[in-house]
Amino acid sequence: MQVQINFQAKKTQDYTVYIDELEHLSFDTKVAIVSNPTIWALHGDAILQTIKAKECYEIIIPDGEKYKNFETINFILEECFKNRLDRKSVLIAFGGGVIGDMCGFCASIYQRGIKFIQIPTTLLAQVDASVGGKTGINNSFGKNLIGSFWQPMAVYCESKFLQTLPQREFSAGVAEIIKMAVTFDADFFYWLENNSLHVEANLKQAIQKCVAIKASVVAQDEKEEGIRAVLNYGHTFAHVIENETHYTRYLHGEAVGIGMCMANALALTLGLMCEEDAARVQALLEGYNLPTSYELLHVEKFYEAFFLDKKSHNHKIKFILPKTIGSFAIKDDITKETICTSLEAFHA
Amino acid sequence: MQVQINFQAKKTQDYTVYIDELEHLSFDTKVAIVSNPTIWALHGDAILQTIKAKECYEIIIPDGEKYKNFETINFILEECFKNRLDRKSVLIAFGGGVIGDMCGFCASIYQRGIKFIQIPTTLLAQVDASVGGKTGINNSFGKNLIGSFWQPMAVYCESKFLQTLPQREFSAGVAEIIKMAVTFDADFFYWLENNSLHVEANLKQAIQKCVAIKASVVAQDEKEEGIRAVLNYGHTFAHVIENETHYTRYLHGEAVGIGMCMANALALTLGLMCEEDAARVQALLEGYNLPTSYELLHVEKFYEAFFLDKKSHNHKIKFILPKTIGSFAIKDDITKETICTSLEAFHA
Repeated sequence: MQVQINFQAKKTQDYTVYIDELEHLSFDTKVAIVSNPTIWALHGDAILQTIKAKECYEIIIPDGEKYKNFETINFILEECFKNRLDRKSVLIAFGGGVIGDMCGFCASIYQRGIKFIQIPTTLLAQVDASVGGKTGINNSFGKNLIGSFWQPMAVYCESKFLQTLPQREFSAGVAEIIKMAVTFDADFFYWLENNSLHVEANLKQAIQKCVAIKASVVAQDEKEEGIRAVLNYGHTFAHVIENETHYTRYLHGEAVGIGMCMANALALTLGLMCEEDAARVQALLEGYNLPTSYELLHVEKFYEAFFLDKKSHNHKIKFILPKTIGSFAIKDDITKETICTSLEAFHA
Repeated sequence: MQVQINFQAKKTQDYTVYIDELEHLSFDTKVAIVSNPTIWALHGDAILQTIKAKECYEIIIPDGEKYKNFETINFILEECFKNRLDRKSVLIAFGGGVIGDMCGFCASIYQRGIKFIQIPTTLLAQVDASVGGKTGINNSFGKNLIGSFWQPMAVYCESKFLQTLPQREFSAGVAEIIKMAVTFDADFFYWLENNSLHVEANLKQAIQKCVAIKASVVAQDEKEEGIRAVLNYGHTFAHVIENETHYTRYLHGEAVGIGMCMANALALTLGLMCEEDAARVQALLEGYNLPTSYELLHVEKFYEAFFLDKKSHNHKIKFILPKTIGSFAIKDDITKETICTSLEAFHA
């Protein structure tokens, strides 16, 4: 005997990314703002003045990638329960990528899912992490290995929050901007080579460009069944680097910078990319003081760590590799020998 | 400046509930079966003979509602990582509702979501819990308060697994069968009054009927934005009872049996239901040795506990109340006085 369940087609709710348009947010529900002590000290008062809600709670969690774990998720959820947030309540992520990933994850599992809003305060989160609904936490096996796809109801990118950003975090964000250009847009890359992001108007233009690229990719492939994987250029390597260095030595964007150079080395080994293009990418990264080299201790161990990446299947790893600047190849049939050969260049 | 993200409409994958049709399951991927020691001792060998996979792992978790928490979720996920399950791997829930809820929750958050299959071994899970994609865990604030909507790729209900079911668990399953009849199908209720579920052919017919009702409700309203809430008849009360008694005194189905009587008492107080219908429901429950009374200690405390229920919003609780047998009303405007008056009948 069989019973068939036939669902009706439904759309994930569309949403808007607002750039420098945040004035007031009003809610007829309870709201909880998730933030960290650093951001809260700098911008807590400003954000509280922006938000009107039935009841508004603050949930302050420790700052840093190493707290992106189940303990912190549990803490956020407990605070939500203590304050009796219900299914109509809204969570607001106010901080960088770590805050956004965890707040989004909590929103996706609190009472089987409630709404949330992203107000990213780092460049990296504004140009990349806050858009597209990827949420998650790390564990001992690697990065973002537990999580969900859960779209925000809106994203507000405010350049005023970037003014207090430390230089290193600014550069980490630039790494993701460069990533978008290398994979999707040669003109944008050329523009980046000739326009400094330290100029405010340029930065704003770059943010808008990145959000537009990301929005288009995510709208086509929300759950990363195809083209969305291209946004992981550099990330397969970066995740191993971050795990090896216990999330303390590099900021995520810095690891991505190194990861792009590693991906380029592999693309060179395969004859996909030319040396000149690889040099241009490296030069652009270095122009923003981003690291482009890494001294790995064990090639074999580094290689093995790939297989915990979410893009690995059947002992195959999916690599996103540039062909020219602005175009890419997706490869999952590269031999271990080739990969290890290209990793040798990064051997200490 | 604004960037709009416009998603394409997409369907949740349709699936089939198979009743007594499980012979072989073949996978070209890794598979992990989540079960408990009781079920595994009884039916582990049988299920292993049914399943062919690239690699097949067993994840055995302790038996019982009190283990439906983050610690167990973490344990299941760690086992998946240790065995290097990837995004194409499949989890199989082999057990009752607790196993299904936790296995489904893990599937929904492992690497941002992988496939899972339900093979329910209790009557309650076969007629209700395994169909419809509700997953979750409990915490100190209440039941199923953390979780997700994540549909299985298939459900296999096998009557052979019910043969080893303790009598109490059988009755607990019957409570959910009666729930479906009271809310949605007067003919089915009448049939239940006149046909014993201890007769195998009748039981199979009832399972199919319940799955069909559930499938139709869930297909219309996957995320419980409307009619699906009706399946919670009795549950708003049951969750408080289970929480008060620390998930040890009653099986979930038993608490639902009491909860239906409490809902009926409220429906009587409001003049929605007639005494004769309430008596018929109680008689049918008692015919299967289900508890229909509860001695609550503090009416006020019991009332307050409603507000942690997921169906509560703005200090309003949504009650599902029978009008006649086979029809229902959804009420969220009942005064505290009325609710407490009807609860008084259950005061110790």
